[in-house]
Amino acid sequence: MRSARIVGSGLIGTSIGLALAQRGIPVQMGDRDARAERLAQELVGPFSGGQVDLVIFATPSTALSEILNSEFARNPHAGFIDVGSIKSKVLVEVERSSIPRSRFCPTHPMAGREIGGAEAGQGDLFQSRAWIYDPMGVDHDVVAMVRELISVCGALPVEMASSAHDRAVAKVSHLAQIASSLLAAQLLSGSDEELSLAGAGLRDTTRIAGSDPELWADIISMNATEIEPLLISMMNDLQNVITHLDDRSAIKDFIQRGREGRARIPGKHGGKQREYTFVPIVIDDKPGQLRLIFDECAAVGVNVEDLSIEHSPGQEKGLVTLAMSRVDAEKFSEHMRTRGWSVHPWR
Amino acid sequence: MRSARIVGSGLIGTSIGLALAQRGIPVQMGDRDARAERLAQELVGPFSGGQVDLVIFATPSTALSEILNSEFARNPHAGFIDVGSIKSKVLVEVERSSIPRSRFCPTHPMAGREIGGAEAGQGDLFQSRAWIYDPMGVDHDVVAMVRELISVCGALPVEMASSAHDRAVAKVSHLAQIASSLLAAQLLSGSDEELSLAGAGLRDTTRIAGSDPELWADIISMNATEIEPLLISMMNDLQNVITHLDDRSAIKDFIQRGREGRARIPGKHGGKQREYTFVPIVIDDKPGQLRLIFDECAAVGVNVEDLSIEHSPGQEKGLVTLAMSRVDAEKFSEHMRTRGWSVHPWR
Repeated sequence: MRSARIVGSGLIGTSIGLALAQRGIPVQMGDRDARAERLAQELVGPFSGGQVDLVIFATPSTALSEILNSEFARNPHAGFIDVGSIKSKVLVEVERSSIPRSRFCPTHPMAGREIGGAEAGQGDLFQSRAWIYDPMGVDHDVVAMVRELISVCGALPVEMASSAHDRAVAKVSHLAQIASSLLAAQLLSGSDEELSLAGAGLRDTTRIAGSDPELWADIISMNATEIEPLLISMMNDLQNVITHLDDRSAIKDFIQRGREGRARIPGKHGGKQREYTFVPIVIDDKPGQLRLIFDECAAVGVNVEDLSIEHSPGQEKGLVTLAMSRVDAEKFSEHMRTRGWSVHPWR
Repeated sequence: MRSARIVGSGLIGTSIGLALAQRGIPVQMGDRDARAERLAQELVGPFSGGQVDLVIFATPSTALSEILNSEFARNPHAGFIDVGSIKSKVLVEVERSSIPRSRFCPTHPMAGREIGGAEAGQGDLFQSRAWIYDPMGVDHDVVAMVRELISVCGALPVEMASSAHDRAVAKVSHLAQIASSLLAAQLLSGSDEELSLAGAGLRDTTRIAGSDPELWADIISMNATEIEPLLISMMNDLQNVITHLDDRSAIKDFIQRGREGRARIPGKHGGKQREYTFVPIVIDDKPGQLRLIFDECAAVGVNVEDLSIEHSPGQEKGLVTLAMSRVDAEKFSEHMRTRGWSVHPWR
């Protein structure tokens, strides 16, 4: 593409603009907020005017219906894409607009952060992230520009039908958000003493409950159709758990089913999750400890697959747990002991 | 204490036995399975017979009622403790037995692992972990032995009433287990393509769904009384979400409440969670990369507060994200860029 117009000068729009500008592609920023538009345009550099090849809608999807026709009138020969989290609703809006369906490609870059605005934009936001696009029925020249855009942003192209996308993100993303928020909301009624017993399990399970309410209100209400049957299934399962709460074998089956579901999540490189073992190390909570540990890892040539850091309440001690293969764990633990570390491998 | 008897030669019992034996305290192991008892006794070293000062029940709590009287008859002058995950039900059993209430102290070491058996026992299992005990109405000599035991095991003593303990773990541990299993069970019906879009959010939220069904069947069914009202509250909230799924402002309130609940979990050293920023670094997925990163951290003198490792599906690239203070993040990112790393700090 030789030039692009980005409608929506928030985090995502500005980040795309920066990525394109860094490759020398002129970008025209747009926003219904003139201040945001000016700021974003200043960040991505000047635009000399004229028609563009690609128009990227980076507004909230709820605002699309108002601007599709005017944007088409402005650049009638361009390709059009959006970058929203939900795809089917957007296609409905496009079908109602003057933009020919063959000129519009729905896409979804799977990246974000908690803060928004042009100020938060950064050209490397999409580095190594999946960027889903649905080329079905879209002209080749538009699809080619989408692939170029994804490549310029350093993201990984993933081809998927829009309906399949919405069903998939409902299951692997939106449902997890709701479950995490649901659990975290129950903590509002706990005492400080109760919460002081919280461990890594609760912390992990509620991490995404810290996400932005505005963003998630849009996503969930727009994908309600796909999310609803999943929530009803989850509620039926929950009702079942409540009914059989003192039936040991029913509870065992329930935990077992969760374990099997968990095992279906692909691990590293899309393959099966590997078998690791864990090596907890008690450390003083001061700078440089992790570095020393990784120096020791390098000295014995072992590969750390994952790592977690825990801090005991009220203590200036920390617990670093490394995940590594069983062979590496044995070699590493023996080495660490001879070096005087407090290492406690799972055997 | 001068000697102890441990009834139950599984993971927890054998681990306590090993910790005591390493301090030269003679330990008599017991188990209804003669093979497990012999193995555990061999691991902790010989016991010469006679009465003991402290009897530790490390059987599943469901088995306690059968053995309390015979163990009291065997060591009528000893102190008695248990180490189960639920405290109130155990006290009911003790009240029904011949063991005087003043000779029994309920305790709960907050440690474990996914595999069980004497073979899995290790004396350092409790290092830096909280060990809750309820000294209310218990003789001073018994409480003193409990404190000594916790200290010998390297754990951190936390005093708490049994009823408060059961209510607290229902909220901060058992509810999280059920929510995580509930979510993970919904993945059984997803396609492989859908699951390939799973990100760090789903992975974190379902991590504890991988836990042992036997263990959790015991814990949940024994603490059903405390768990039930929490599950009902969670189900009402879920019903509410389903009813208002396309009501944007209701969903926003719901996500907001979860965010506030999440913020109540204490951070490092029992204090408030700190404000960090994040520094993602794209790495080649090969050994030694983390070590090089920590060498760079040390070179500029910054402190890493947390770390996560992600791998893009189908790519031999990884994404390491460091959490650090804003000041450290700026200093570190600038340094890393001059050293040629692909670093993408949140700004």
